[in-house]
Amino acid sequence: MSNSSKLLEKAIEQFASLPGIGRRTALKFVLHLLKKNADEVTAFAKSITDLKENIKECAVCHNIADGEICEICADKRRDADIICVVENIRDIMSIEATAQFKGLYHVLGGIISPMDGIGPADLNINTLIDRIMSTDVKEVIFALSATIEGDTTAYYIYKKIKDKENITVSTIAKGISIGNDLEFTDELTLGRSIVNRISFSG
Amino acid sequence: MSNSSKLLEKAIEQFASLPGIGRRTALKFVLHLLKKNADEVTAFAKSITDLKENIKECAVCHNIADGEICEICADKRRDADIICVVENIRDIMSIEATAQFKGLYHVLGGIISPMDGIGPADLNINTLIDRIMSTDVKEVIFALSATIEGDTTAYYIYKKIKDKENITVSTIAKGISIGNDLEFTDELTLGRSIVNRISFSG
Repeated sequence: MSNSSKLLEKAIEQFASLPGIGRRTALKFVLHLLKKNADEVTAFAKSITDLKENIKECAVCHNIADGEICEICADKRRDADIICVVENIRDIMSIEATAQFKGLYHVLGGIISPMDGIGPADLNINTLIDRIMSTDVKEVIFALSATIEGDTTAYYIYKKIKDKENITVSTIAKGISIGNDLEFTDELTLGRSIVNRISFSG
Repeated sequence: MSNSSKLLEKAIEQFASLPGIGRRTALKFVLHLLKKNADEVTAFAKSITDLKENIKECAVCHNIADGEICEICADKRRDADIICVVENIRDIMSIEATAQFKGLYHVLGGIISPMDGIGPADLNINTLIDRIMSTDVKEVIFALSATIEGDTTAYYIYKKIKDKENITVSTIAKGISIGNDLEFTDELTLGRSIVNRISFSG
């Protein structure tokens, strides 16, 4: 579909570069914006430039932050004794959505993956180790992908911090999804859930 | 899902205001943009502000235009004797995609709809009539929705221009869609396609 406006075409191309968006949907977005008033469109554009210009990385945990420190690290009600180690900020959002964790986070920015040429030095691992060794953190929870890379990363960090006194290191439980039928669970997960079976208490 | 960045939240809200986009998809877009470099993100935002700041309405046909006159009206190879009357710019794109029309357009900006309080004065009807009466346009084609409102609009304009000499006024054919089974065609369309049957030529 050709257009009589190069500027319209450019906007369509930009929206079509978003994941999962084709030209038809991009055109729908652009026509929708064309109908809005100038202030609304400016606000839309500003929210995008702000993403790069004003969103910073938290100096403590590498989460995204509007200032120097992210809202989670700045929140005095959160338990500074526990650090949950995650791969990226999306994982923080997922865990926050569960409302089951009230400690702090540390974003690695990826996981160790020799196949992709990603080593410990490419990730926020040194800042994590400094943070654990220099404060009185009592527990570290690894919430990484259930893959060889995730396990390798957790084990690499574990070796560096295991000598600290009075520290508990754990990883989130792997098992069958709640609500899932056993017959649809893959063998590896099912096997792991049997090995890591949980005793009834009481 | 709550976020630790108000700026991120704002960008998500903006994307979630696009038609058919929910918060999860909006988040996916925003995280995608966060990973891009500053220049790319700025270009994205600029393409949006340009929509309002630099895209104008063609002084002749009310299509969108980068300058005073749109590319279609400025194109000398197009047939200025025929004007196709459409409701909105999206219709121009659809017709252009067929590559079956080489004349010019006129965008009404809507159709007459007393139920919605839209009368002839709210649309680009006067400029169309001026355009038809003051130039030597030979044919006017109405490509409006096949609804009572579309027919009313076409008839209203037809009455105003029918006294001009040597002018042909037509409306696009209504009939069954190409490739469609007769049994799935609605009765009104089928009835209309029988009334407007086309003789085999030759």
